[in-house]
Amino acid sequence: MSLTIGVDVGGTKVAAGVVDERGKVVEKLRRATPSSSPARTEQVIAGAVTELLSRHRVGAVGLGAAGFIDEERASVRFAPNLAWREEPLRLRVEGLIGLPVVVENDANASAWAEVRFGAAHGHAYVVFVGVGTGIGAGIVLDGALYRGQWGMAGEPGHYRVVPDGRLCGCGNRGCWEQYASGSALVAEAREFAQRSPGAAVRLLQLAGGSPDGITGSQVTQAAREGDPVAARCFATVGGWLGQGLADLAAILDPGCFVIGGGVSEAGELLLGPARAAFEKALTGGSHRHLAQIKLAQLGADAGIVGAADLARGAVPAARRTGRARSAGRQAARD
Amino acid sequence: MSLTIGVDVGGTKVAAGVVDERGKVVEKLRRATPSSSPARTEQVIAGAVTELLSRHRVGAVGLGAAGFIDEERASVRFAPNLAWREEPLRLRVEGLIGLPVVVENDANASAWAEVRFGAAHGHAYVVFVGVGTGIGAGIVLDGALYRGQWGMAGEPGHYRVVPDGRLCGCGNRGCWEQYASGSALVAEAREFAQRSPGAAVRLLQLAGGSPDGITGSQVTQAAREGDPVAARCFATVGGWLGQGLADLAAILDPGCFVIGGGVSEAGELLLGPARAAFEKALTGGSHRHLAQIKLAQLGADAGIVGAADLARGAVPAARRTGRARSAGRQAARD
Repeated sequence: MSLTIGVDVGGTKVAAGVVDERGKVVEKLRRATPSSSPARTEQVIAGAVTELLSRHRVGAVGLGAAGFIDEERASVRFAPNLAWREEPLRLRVEGLIGLPVVVENDANASAWAEVRFGAAHGHAYVVFVGVGTGIGAGIVLDGALYRGQWGMAGEPGHYRVVPDGRLCGCGNRGCWEQYASGSALVAEAREFAQRSPGAAVRLLQLAGGSPDGITGSQVTQAAREGDPVAARCFATVGGWLGQGLADLAAILDPGCFVIGGGVSEAGELLLGPARAAFEKALTGGSHRHLAQIKLAQLGADAGIVGAADLARGAVPAARRTGRARSAGRQAARD
Repeated sequence: MSLTIGVDVGGTKVAAGVVDERGKVVEKLRRATPSSSPARTEQVIAGAVTELLSRHRVGAVGLGAAGFIDEERASVRFAPNLAWREEPLRLRVEGLIGLPVVVENDANASAWAEVRFGAAHGHAYVVFVGVGTGIGAGIVLDGALYRGQWGMAGEPGHYRVVPDGRLCGCGNRGCWEQYASGSALVAEAREFAQRSPGAAVRLLQLAGGSPDGITGSQVTQAAREGDPVAARCFATVGGWLGQGLADLAAILDPGCFVIGGGVSEAGELLLGPARAAFEKALTGGSHRHLAQIKLAQLGADAGIVGAADLARGAVPAARRTGRARSAGRQAARD
């Protein structure tokens, strides 16, 4: 069974895992990242990979990073939450570990994992929407990850849904991720608790009395308990989510949407309103097939699994084997 | 040189042309369509094609229709401006003319024509946006027309750009085509002339004194003459156009946009503001390549040329030749 390593490179941590051909994570480890320094982050990545290489014979490494990746799948052009600008991540990490490396956008890696091994298995036209602090997305068309002309495709989190809307981290206003993300959910709950503390009593209890202390998982907990204010926050955010899916369906007509990311752990609390809004907003809805809207199945491992599988697909078997041997020898020497 | 016929099926007319392998229109004719009856429209199409067949040896026919076409490229599921609902257009027209037929969305056909023979020649990732009464669009990815899971892809005219915005013919509110189309241009000019007749003096002169008489070509004429009110109407509509292109770039990252349709005849009056808005709105704009925004080159023939070329590509050469011979014999007998 051929093994590869997938690394999920986030703003605060690196998670690396050894993954087999069936998408199973054989071993996984996690390290904190100093986001202010690209060089330090690369060393952390290399350290985690090297530790895994000491115990597994591995052919290639896939890095999933939260940023815009170039069409060569080598450099991070720009990462809103990392210190990287035109960072040649592939070269740097290949230099440190001596194995072939492929770089991919982290949400693209998750999308690929869900298509290969998760909720969208068997689907050829899929849009993955990771609803976390922001929105990360990945698009699979005709069974392949879609990157566009220059590798920048699949960023619907930054299409505009409200003219002159909320300010986004990307510098624009009104981006989808300001309305259909975990940040939006929390902002909604906090704003409501500020204005109507009497009605938001359960949320305020959970947050220790302060509107500003309300977190996403508290909103989820309160909604699960049946708190109507928390449920309404999910209805609002889910409504924006479903509208966006309808917009994406007008453009891409996928067979399946997969909703992942931390907020998707709320399950039907989020997906119920999203489906309702989607069906209402889909243009020509009564004369066409409706795409499925499914929950992601691979959870937090999706990025690792997808990056590892993309590395397997991108690096020719011969090269993987040759390098795997020398890595194996090197590991044996260590 | 192998010939095919392309037919552009609109709400009020049918235009049919014999097209060669290089995209040249050899002969073209035009018929009025009775939009209330699908059967009558099919007879008009068949009549036009039969007339062309009497003078040319043709292998296949492509129909470009203003509607949602199914994934088999056989039926019109739904056409906002035609009387068709689940209409088996391919079967009906094949029955009438005895040649293989392919059905395509009319804007998809235009997109394909611009990629094969026009403004986007040499580009593999292209979004064509036809700015007419509404917005018709076509998407070419990796050198092939993109249809999505069920053939409904490429309808960004109906993604929502303004929550609770202007009512659209599709039944929703706030669709892009209500802001970035010829209808929007005219509505803008009329509304302004109503409110400020003194400032809109040139537009009112051209329209014979009545705000409701202002047409799109009058707005174009006034803007060309330097009328600031007309120029501002183009700036508004071009701004919405460019914002939409930035939204599409966030999702699709194409190398080239082609702007066609009647309003595009205004050239830089429309494209200038569109480019400015695009560059301002594109997420991560300073860290990525900017797609080109080009004027369509094939004008009103694009639909015919694209449909004809798609028919050539879709029908195997052997079948084209066999049928072409019998069509030739039939024409000789007539």
